[in-house]
Amino acid sequence: MRPRGERRIIVMAEGGFDLNEAKTAVGVMRYGRDTTLAVVDSTKAGMMASEVVGTGTEVPIVGSVREALERTKDANTLLLGTAPRGGGLPDAWRAQIREAMRAGLDVINGLHAFLSDDPELSAAARDASIDIWDVRRVPETHRVADTRAHTLPATVVLAIGSDCNVGKMSTMLEIDAIARKRGRRSTFVPTGQTGILIAGWGVALDEVISDFTAGAAEDLVMDAAREASSQGDLILVEGQGSLVHPGYSGVTLSLVHGSAPDAMILCHQAGRTAIRRYTLPIPPLSRLIQLYQGISEPVKPAKVIGISLNTFGMSEADARAALDRASQETGLSATDPVRYGADTLLDAIEQFSARMPDKSAASNTTTKGAA
Amino acid sequence: MRPRGERRIIVMAEGGFDLNEAKTAVGVMRYGRDTTLAVVDSTKAGMMASEVVGTGTEVPIVGSVREALERTKDANTLLLGTAPRGGGLPDAWRAQIREAMRAGLDVINGLHAFLSDDPELSAAARDASIDIWDVRRVPETHRVADTRAHTLPATVVLAIGSDCNVGKMSTMLEIDAIARKRGRRSTFVPTGQTGILIAGWGVALDEVISDFTAGAAEDLVMDAAREASSQGDLILVEGQGSLVHPGYSGVTLSLVHGSAPDAMILCHQAGRTAIRRYTLPIPPLSRLIQLYQGISEPVKPAKVIGISLNTFGMSEADARAALDRASQETGLSATDPVRYGADTLLDAIEQFSARMPDKSAASNTTTKGAA
Repeated sequence: MRPRGERRIIVMAEGGFDLNEAKTAVGVMRYGRDTTLAVVDSTKAGMMASEVVGTGTEVPIVGSVREALERTKDANTLLLGTAPRGGGLPDAWRAQIREAMRAGLDVINGLHAFLSDDPELSAAARDASIDIWDVRRVPETHRVADTRAHTLPATVVLAIGSDCNVGKMSTMLEIDAIARKRGRRSTFVPTGQTGILIAGWGVALDEVISDFTAGAAEDLVMDAAREASSQGDLILVEGQGSLVHPGYSGVTLSLVHGSAPDAMILCHQAGRTAIRRYTLPIPPLSRLIQLYQGISEPVKPAKVIGISLNTFGMSEADARAALDRASQETGLSATDPVRYGADTLLDAIEQFSARMPDKSAASNTTTKGAA
Repeated sequence: MRPRGERRIIVMAEGGFDLNEAKTAVGVMRYGRDTTLAVVDSTKAGMMASEVVGTGTEVPIVGSVREALERTKDANTLLLGTAPRGGGLPDAWRAQIREAMRAGLDVINGLHAFLSDDPELSAAARDASIDIWDVRRVPETHRVADTRAHTLPATVVLAIGSDCNVGKMSTMLEIDAIARKRGRRSTFVPTGQTGILIAGWGVALDEVISDFTAGAAEDLVMDAAREASSQGDLILVEGQGSLVHPGYSGVTLSLVHGSAPDAMILCHQAGRTAIRRYTLPIPPLSRLIQLYQGISEPVKPAKVIGISLNTFGMSEADARAALDRASQETGLSATDPVRYGADTLLDAIEQFSARMPDKSAASNTTTKGAA
């Protein structure tokens, strides 16, 4: 399904509408160009979306798809907006999805399980003449990474993280918006389902066969590079997972080596001490910087040049104190780009970019001159 | 296809029968329980396999499948024994594969492209009533790694490498053989197509969707653990790729974090200075040890305890000198297990295992006590 006019969206997030689970819904509400009309989550019915996730002041949470359809007469899209672990489609959702289809809504699906491969739901979509867009479906092309992104003229910046869901996508979208305001040529490179929904292109790297994940990341950066011909141009790559995440670290390293950034922004949620859903402690920021720089160095050296700290829910004083601590520990500028704007991070990128040697002239020495 | 009696194999390796490309064929000839009758590679026809790859003294290389069928009346299996980059099936091979099928040979396919998904070849297989085994086809189950392998009673050892194709599988198979001779309970865990063909089970991790690659590695170790109930028991995990490989590093890190080894054996080909097919220099062994230990530490600390050096093609003096240098640089015992046997590596594992604290008692502190 390609965009056709404005989408007017009902978000299906039954039992999972919160900042941890409903990353896709929140991203689309905050950064997307479409309109979200209602969120379905019977466990929070009666509240407004903004009361739960800090965005969507005019978006009611309702108890069922039927209720959402009754309250929002002109919805044209149902978005499956939670990404449960493993990505399977909860059985309880099927009846509600079929109801939306019968009402003429297209379905955008960010789950691992593809609706177009589901006999029941793909038949229901045909019967209702509506479209299914499985956002995570990846290209058929399989290419091993080939270091092609190592010598692009543009400045490539990757968001990296201490964990999943700490603000890597938001950080890059905020920097991208400010860069455009400053008149820079800047391209946001989506690597996950929410980024793809927001930007309208990209590949969900975590869905790619592992041999080809770095190759897919490289291809995305090469696509972005068509519009970026000088060192002052920015390519801002959405990060995925974390090098220290027991389940997803392979996706992260494929992205680090495949996208071949010049610089990295380290993203972390202030106060989070353990990997989400695991008991593993998150290493200190300074150790994370060592790990990311150390593992990038033999393939394509990249330097961590700024810290993005998610301080959602903290008091002003606590947020400022957390930023000060992060800055002191790492010697880098630290901000919460959603709370305070991304200007200081873009400043750090611009300073780095201005000092960066011409990469294309250094194509034979990409592995020397470590960060 | 499950094993049915002894396989008598013709290896299809057209244009690629050498130590770099024909890893699967060489592994099956050296470690497998089946008999290889002939190798097809018209560019080397007339030679014996052993002249090219150092194993297979009685295996002739012939110019075509037809010639192989004529010379080896009782072949029952065609093995696609080269793994070209990207894994696609060369068009020129199709006619020869169909010819083998018509002659009643089953086909074992180690390529990324599945023959059973190929309309022409799967129809030909049906017509000929023969079986296709796509070795790289992975389970449908999708599971995110969950640190379940962190507290197994057995000693888990992973082969890691400086690059692809340096001897990680051979090293573990040699150690496994010696361990069994010494009366230890030892399980080789196959993670790639050749290991799977040799051992008859396993999963080709590089074919798994990247979100689930660490989970698949964890599952393999858990399967092996059913037979390994004490610290003296060994689980020997076949390694994949390298942390510093621009294309495959994500597979490697998924395997490191998913299999959760206690110890690692670093494998390298003596004299290789750059990543194969790339111009990237391979870091010194001591730096590789730092990288592997550093990246394992936050998830499940693992220590590099021995060096396996592939000295194939080197003079005796050069091989001994290379081993001495490796040992001196790293402070670890180094050997070429194919050339000199794996006893010293098994000794290192046994010493490590004897000193290792009881993991199952330390289940709450798996991320402390770094290597």
